[in-house]
Amino acid sequence: MSSLQLVNPRVRGIRGSPHSGLQSLAARITQEITQGAQKPFKGVIDVSSGDPHKAGVKPISFVRQVLAVCLHPQLLKNKTLPLDVRMRAQRLLEVCDGGSVGSYTASSGMPHVKQSIAEFITRRDAGVPSHAEDIFISAGSQRALMVVVKLLASGEGETRTGVLTPRPCPHTLPPLLDEAGVTLVPYQLMEDRGWAVDLDELHRALKTARGRCEPRAIYISNPGNPTGHVQDGKSIEEVIRFAAAERLLLLVDEVYQDSVYGQEKEFISYKRVLFEMDKEYSETVQLVSFHSISSACMGECGLRAGYMEQVNMDPEVTHFVDTMLCTDISTPVTGQLALDLMVNPPKPGDPSYDTYTQESLLTLATLSQNAQRVQEFLNDLPGMSCQPAMGGIYLYPCLHLPSEIIEKAKKLEVEADVLYCQMLLEEEGVFLGAGCQYDGTTGNHHLRLSILVPPDTLEEVLDHLGSFHLRFVRDKLPRPDGGVKDRDMGENLRPFSTAGTFPMN
Amino acid sequence: MSSLQLVNPRVRGIRGSPHSGLQSLAARITQEITQGAQKPFKGVIDVSSGDPHKAGVKPISFVRQVLAVCLHPQLLKNKTLPLDVRMRAQRLLEVCDGGSVGSYTASSGMPHVKQSIAEFITRRDAGVPSHAEDIFISAGSQRALMVVVKLLASGEGETRTGVLTPRPCPHTLPPLLDEAGVTLVPYQLMEDRGWAVDLDELHRALKTARGRCEPRAIYISNPGNPTGHVQDGKSIEEVIRFAAAERLLLLVDEVYQDSVYGQEKEFISYKRVLFEMDKEYSETVQLVSFHSISSACMGECGLRAGYMEQVNMDPEVTHFVDTMLCTDISTPVTGQLALDLMVNPPKPGDPSYDTYTQESLLTLATLSQNAQRVQEFLNDLPGMSCQPAMGGIYLYPCLHLPSEIIEKAKKLEVEADVLYCQMLLEEEGVFLGAGCQYDGTTGNHHLRLSILVPPDTLEEVLDHLGSFHLRFVRDKLPRPDGGVKDRDMGENLRPFSTAGTFPMN
Repeated sequence: MSSLQLVNPRVRGIRGSPHSGLQSLAARITQEITQGAQKPFKGVIDVSSGDPHKAGVKPISFVRQVLAVCLHPQLLKNKTLPLDVRMRAQRLLEVCDGGSVGSYTASSGMPHVKQSIAEFITRRDAGVPSHAEDIFISAGSQRALMVVVKLLASGEGETRTGVLTPRPCPHTLPPLLDEAGVTLVPYQLMEDRGWAVDLDELHRALKTARGRCEPRAIYISNPGNPTGHVQDGKSIEEVIRFAAAERLLLLVDEVYQDSVYGQEKEFISYKRVLFEMDKEYSETVQLVSFHSISSACMGECGLRAGYMEQVNMDPEVTHFVDTMLCTDISTPVTGQLALDLMVNPPKPGDPSYDTYTQESLLTLATLSQNAQRVQEFLNDLPGMSCQPAMGGIYLYPCLHLPSEIIEKAKKLEVEADVLYCQMLLEEEGVFLGAGCQYDGTTGNHHLRLSILVPPDTLEEVLDHLGSFHLRFVRDKLPRPDGGVKDRDMGENLRPFSTAGTFPMN
Repeated sequence: MSSLQLVNPRVRGIRGSPHSGLQSLAARITQEITQGAQKPFKGVIDVSSGDPHKAGVKPISFVRQVLAVCLHPQLLKNKTLPLDVRMRAQRLLEVCDGGSVGSYTASSGMPHVKQSIAEFITRRDAGVPSHAEDIFISAGSQRALMVVVKLLASGEGETRTGVLTPRPCPHTLPPLLDEAGVTLVPYQLMEDRGWAVDLDELHRALKTARGRCEPRAIYISNPGNPTGHVQDGKSIEEVIRFAAAERLLLLVDEVYQDSVYGQEKEFISYKRVLFEMDKEYSETVQLVSFHSISSACMGECGLRAGYMEQVNMDPEVTHFVDTMLCTDISTPVTGQLALDLMVNPPKPGDPSYDTYTQESLLTLATLSQNAQRVQEFLNDLPGMSCQPAMGGIYLYPCLHLPSEIIEKAKKLEVEADVLYCQMLLEEEGVFLGAGCQYDGTTGNHHLRLSILVPPDTLEEVLDHLGSFHLRFVRDKLPRPDGGVKDRDMGENLRPFSTAGTFPMN
């Protein structure tokens, strides 16, 4: 292994993410500030990815109190902690082997937590039954997705497994598919319809893919990451019929199910819609749904736990899911316990109920207000437009760039939206995600912006973004003398790598 | 994906582990007892794998107190907690993004923790320098190992990557190598020399493998899992010279470095030995060393964190380590903080120093006493022999079985040691690991037994094991009437699957 030639070709083929490059740059700038460098900003504000605690959102108190007691059980006697906190901790410690969060668990998760999840899903879906044995807990929903995609992976060339993937999609998805060894088959979401899924486009994507690979699954993100779109029952049913007709496994990322804030919008699960359809669908269509404690209201990204529910899967396939999870040994216990608390929160009358409810509602209210504020702000900027969002934690505005900027970016061998984000980061300390889904025909690029941040932080972001954007656009406009004021459009930027270092969700 | 045929052939090829089957059986028995079934024992005692907290070993108080405060920072004001606990928690919260354990971290780990680890290694190795950029934190050492092995994997047939693997080895290793797609090349450890590594055997194994695959790495476990052997400097130097001559990457599992208890034995790291050799070695031999919070003294298996240090690795290869860790998003933060506490414990004079030291010393004393007790006990049983252990948390006794038992096992299509463990579990509720390394010529089998359990639990295990073993052997001895009393030797056992469900370390 003394040379690069010897690295596994599949690993070598994992695409570099411009997001990772931007993250390295953000880390470098932060380090420079720590070391005393003078910048026109106090520090980097990162709204590129969904990391609410990093952005200053507070954790749910009940969750943290219960986990603290589970880690240090002497706190069971601490009467300053609410009674339901201590009772819940006691109960959770009883279901940990040896009464300790330091023990391994079954690789597919703690039976008690799986049971809590199944009951939560049954309640959520108005009684459609869910079973603990169909629940698989993992260190985050991404890890569960990787397990399923790896099971699907096979073949080479035209028999190679393909996965229909929305465009735009979560920025962590393409490298995951690369690593698993499957082909990404893009289908375009409809920006002018608020990023809806379009059935004709699904058929087109599938038709184009056949012969190049063997499409075996379709990935959906609902509420949409990064689009903020929320599907209604009719749209979901269409996708299910499509998957059934084309014999595709449905991989449904529903991690933002707790954060739908659009007027008269609600989250409806794929499973619920499926079970309200005829038996020819409800008993045959294979579906895997993912959820996570990194979701909006919990925001416990650092604790690492998520789960998938499998519906209509072949038990022999499920057996291999277990085999794959085994190599992870087990999911972090603190994360599993947080998962239990997420799906089984305090009930009315419990001492922690009011605080828990207020904290959750505050998150939803923040999302809703921030979404409206950002959308209006961005639509007022020249060369920027933003679809309204109805759920999730992102906005995905469109950047209409003058052709000379796109040309400049081409010379620098970087996407124009990456260049935009890089300059914004260097000049204003604001870190936005680059969409990187330029299609070459429209000159349009996109930005990804997390809105799960405290409102005052958001105002700071908009201040910096607004002045940068106006400068960026103005400096590209013709000057009175007929020339183009070609400020430091990238020339003075530091070398920039797309090497993967800090991917986040 | 409606049929098994469609599961990724590599995943289908992961070998079933008899350990998983035994774990399922143990879980079933536990469930039956919970549901009121009458058994001749109160519950299952699991000494099959290293899960100290499950077995009743207490966690280190300092670790749990600091983590509790980090989760629920209001405890910073709780004066019943030692001052150094609160100060350390404060410091750790400062290095968490947004001051929260709920934020993502860099995928290769928190810079502060990597720095602590590098300083720990430098102290441990008497000044041999270690650098934070060579440290990669992951959700357990097994995960880090998987990343490196996947980087190595390539080729098919005689160009397929092979990894020299000790026999016996950690029971989680063979499925890991299967999943990564590399060939396991076994080398036998020398039981009659306390499970030492033998140079001639390494050469023999390598020679046999060449032409069948392309050996590119050698895996070593020191202190040995499950053998308890501890290598001296001379043996380590021999292995390093062998690896250098044969251009093999050294993968050294050193997770039990904190638990050497043999008289006049000490842990010496491969890195330290390497750096005391000539430059032709110290500047060229590629080495990766693994450590984990699941180690003996911490025993925090459920929190999931470990690290690897890379020595002399090509920076371009290291780049891909980052890429691979990216798909895990990030290592659990509670685990990373526990890692920081493990490598940077309280110092003399700190309020928590005495308790911390007592708790750690108690673990070492327990291991030492238990090792001696079990070894003597087993060597007194007919048909059983046990090499002395010097470190780690396992004993690996040899079971000399009468040929009729081996024949019986063959009829039942199960290894004789698995049959032994299955009957012991059903009849006495004691769960030992099966060695499964029968070589067909000696009639010898092996058992794996964790000795990191409270002494009174150990006595219970030995009671049950002793009476079972005598029954097992006696029932196979010729009776006065000349027949063989063929008790329920497996006939009444329930169906037993080797399907993977609950692997542990």
